[in-house]
Amino acid sequence: MGNTKKLPLKGFRDFLPEKMVIRREVIKRLRVVFEKYGFDELQTPALEYKEVLTGKYGEEAEKLMYLFKDRGGRDIGLRYDLTVPLARVATSYPDLPVPFKRYQIQPVWRAEKPQKGRYREFYQCDFDIVGSDSPMADAEIIAVLNDAFSALGFIEYRIKINSRSVLSSSLAKAGLSGKLHYPAITTIDKLEKKGKASVEKELLEKGLTANQINKLFAEIKKAKPDELLLKVIEYAQGLGVGQKLEFDATLSRGLDYYTGPIYEVAVEKPKIGSLAGGGRYDKLLSDLGGPNLPATGASIGLDRVIDVLEELNLWKDINKTAVKVLVTVFSEKNLSRSLEVTNLLRKSGINAELYLDAKTKLEKQLKYADKKGIVWAIIIGPEEILKQKVVLKNLKTKTQESIPEQALLTKIG
Amino acid sequence: MGNTKKLPLKGFRDFLPEKMVIRREVIKRLRVVFEKYGFDELQTPALEYKEVLTGKYGEEAEKLMYLFKDRGGRDIGLRYDLTVPLARVATSYPDLPVPFKRYQIQPVWRAEKPQKGRYREFYQCDFDIVGSDSPMADAEIIAVLNDAFSALGFIEYRIKINSRSVLSSSLAKAGLSGKLHYPAITTIDKLEKKGKASVEKELLEKGLTANQINKLFAEIKKAKPDELLLKVIEYAQGLGVGQKLEFDATLSRGLDYYTGPIYEVAVEKPKIGSLAGGGRYDKLLSDLGGPNLPATGASIGLDRVIDVLEELNLWKDINKTAVKVLVTVFSEKNLSRSLEVTNLLRKSGINAELYLDAKTKLEKQLKYADKKGIVWAIIIGPEEILKQKVVLKNLKTKTQESIPEQALLTKIG
Repeated sequence: MGNTKKLPLKGFRDFLPEKMVIRREVIKRLRVVFEKYGFDELQTPALEYKEVLTGKYGEEAEKLMYLFKDRGGRDIGLRYDLTVPLARVATSYPDLPVPFKRYQIQPVWRAEKPQKGRYREFYQCDFDIVGSDSPMADAEIIAVLNDAFSALGFIEYRIKINSRSVLSSSLAKAGLSGKLHYPAITTIDKLEKKGKASVEKELLEKGLTANQINKLFAEIKKAKPDELLLKVIEYAQGLGVGQKLEFDATLSRGLDYYTGPIYEVAVEKPKIGSLAGGGRYDKLLSDLGGPNLPATGASIGLDRVIDVLEELNLWKDINKTAVKVLVTVFSEKNLSRSLEVTNLLRKSGINAELYLDAKTKLEKQLKYADKKGIVWAIIIGPEEILKQKVVLKNLKTKTQESIPEQALLTKIG
Repeated sequence: MGNTKKLPLKGFRDFLPEKMVIRREVIKRLRVVFEKYGFDELQTPALEYKEVLTGKYGEEAEKLMYLFKDRGGRDIGLRYDLTVPLARVATSYPDLPVPFKRYQIQPVWRAEKPQKGRYREFYQCDFDIVGSDSPMADAEIIAVLNDAFSALGFIEYRIKINSRSVLSSSLAKAGLSGKLHYPAITTIDKLEKKGKASVEKELLEKGLTANQINKLFAEIKKAKPDELLLKVIEYAQGLGVGQKLEFDATLSRGLDYYTGPIYEVAVEKPKIGSLAGGGRYDKLLSDLGGPNLPATGASIGLDRVIDVLEELNLWKDINKTAVKVLVTVFSEKNLSRSLEVTNLLRKSGINAELYLDAKTKLEKQLKYADKKGIVWAIIIGPEEILKQKVVLKNLKTKTQESIPEQALLTKIG
């Protein structure tokens, strides 16, 4: 095998145990929140018919899809997002209870140019309510976002909310023709990231006059939430969202399929920008070949969230391993005591690894535990057996004590 | 979209919420057991270089692989099993702590003819110890298997154990030449499933003489565990495996890569046969292009286990949904009380769904809850608001009572 082929494909990642611990914990906390709000989990196949995948997405997206023919000559491809499978599922099972509240946490594949923070295989984490046009549904999505980011340990974040109708009304008042609305929206979307000067330049390039641009900024500045948006905000407050939620007339979310309220979570301190977003998309499911049902939902950038948690070292106490303690083996003769203690720990629900070679020097056994990131080690030599005790060593603090076996359960557990 | 394309591809499955609940619970219980024994989780990409995938597996396996060219012209394919990625990971990261104890629970893809219980996308669930040749490692694998099946709620199962050396010695004593060993092993493997007559016939076809066959059965009958196997059994007993483990000289496991002890879990009552198996494979990793490290491990047939649990209805209490309670909405006017109660439940960690339309008749709201499989519903009308109570209804038993809000937490939680 060539050297590069011994590594994963470019843009793909192995998740070794030390990476899995944090991924698992993030996903676990998100699931708890989703289910607390009455969302159930859905999983769909990695492969779908090409026709299903490409449906409405156009050439740009199609270029990024992993498409191929299977051995039966069928045109198929790898999941590109979680919205298309949702539309397909809503079609496949017309008897699903409506509203259908589902979350889905699965990898998707895109043949993008790999770069820092951009992968060819990455997880999406979507939660949506299909079949309700009520502003309460939007409020629930916002409440989930709020609870999710709080559960992940973020403190200084904002949930920005706007709506397509408020935005359209600003655009219309600034004198923009309909065909300029969507190009203008995708540009305004960059306001926070790129600044006013850069956005002005881009709007000029897109054909707006200087006058229109000035008017547009003025309109956006004085825009207020409309009646529907006030309802959403009121319900979200009723669901305990509190001060985190704020109207932001510049929020525009680039995608063209939103039809109502749109929202985004931005972490403010440290300033890392948007980690989640969503909105109402009442026409998209039918456009994708699905049923004619209104829908609203959001997506959390799972890989981005994990990268941020790791980079900022936000979860200081997380371990590199699920293993709590290594039970060392002093010698072949004393092995049975090590087995007994290991059994005791496991029966008490403590993740305990038994060292697998009685001939290895104790020092090397402890080194192995330390390399793996295991915090505790237990040593049971002839002296301990005589005294009916065990030595418990903390590999982080380098301290140790001789204690009765039963005391292990409270010290480690 | 054509009608068939509205369904998942043949051999692929959607896991709707009611299926996900049991899958999630099975995986959760298995993870707890794996981690209790000091195994950490590994995940690898869905796509690998073709060269990595096909390495040693030969044409038969290659025919079942999903192979294609990506947009950069690279020959790639979908994960076919979890052993090849393990070998690749052991090569990619030479600094991994050894022994490397990992479990991996991920889907694999095989272009097999779909039939009952056989899918083109299915989950494998492997756990292995790489880098230890100690019989303690084999004993740990057996102890995990025992704990895993007990955690899944199986009661009458056996763990059969044999070893390739015991089997080879029987084959040699029966006078079989070396080149007949592997063909004979794959046939003997079918003894329990197909019976003696069928196996005799197949052995004859494979070139054994009637005399050799008689001798072989006699040798197998009087075979005893060798010294190494006795050690494995002793250690496994030390790890609490107990009566479930038994030597079975006919156990042969079809695969040719096993080099030492082999084991299999068979559920006896009801008689559904093998649900997990494994063994020691000291040469396979290097054969696959990986490092020259001994290894032992097992694989649990996750989809088969779930099918069996569902078919036999072994988990009677499992729900179709993670949602515990639906908070109904009596009218727009009373909505805020419903919001308050929903908040209270969620803050107490109870999965609570709020009905999303104040205009829907109560009866229809309750029907929705029932269809989704939600057991409890809460009704808060004007009368309840006046009395400062809520009505809690059990949709399974069709009983209801009027109780103070705080009492909900003990009744439902």
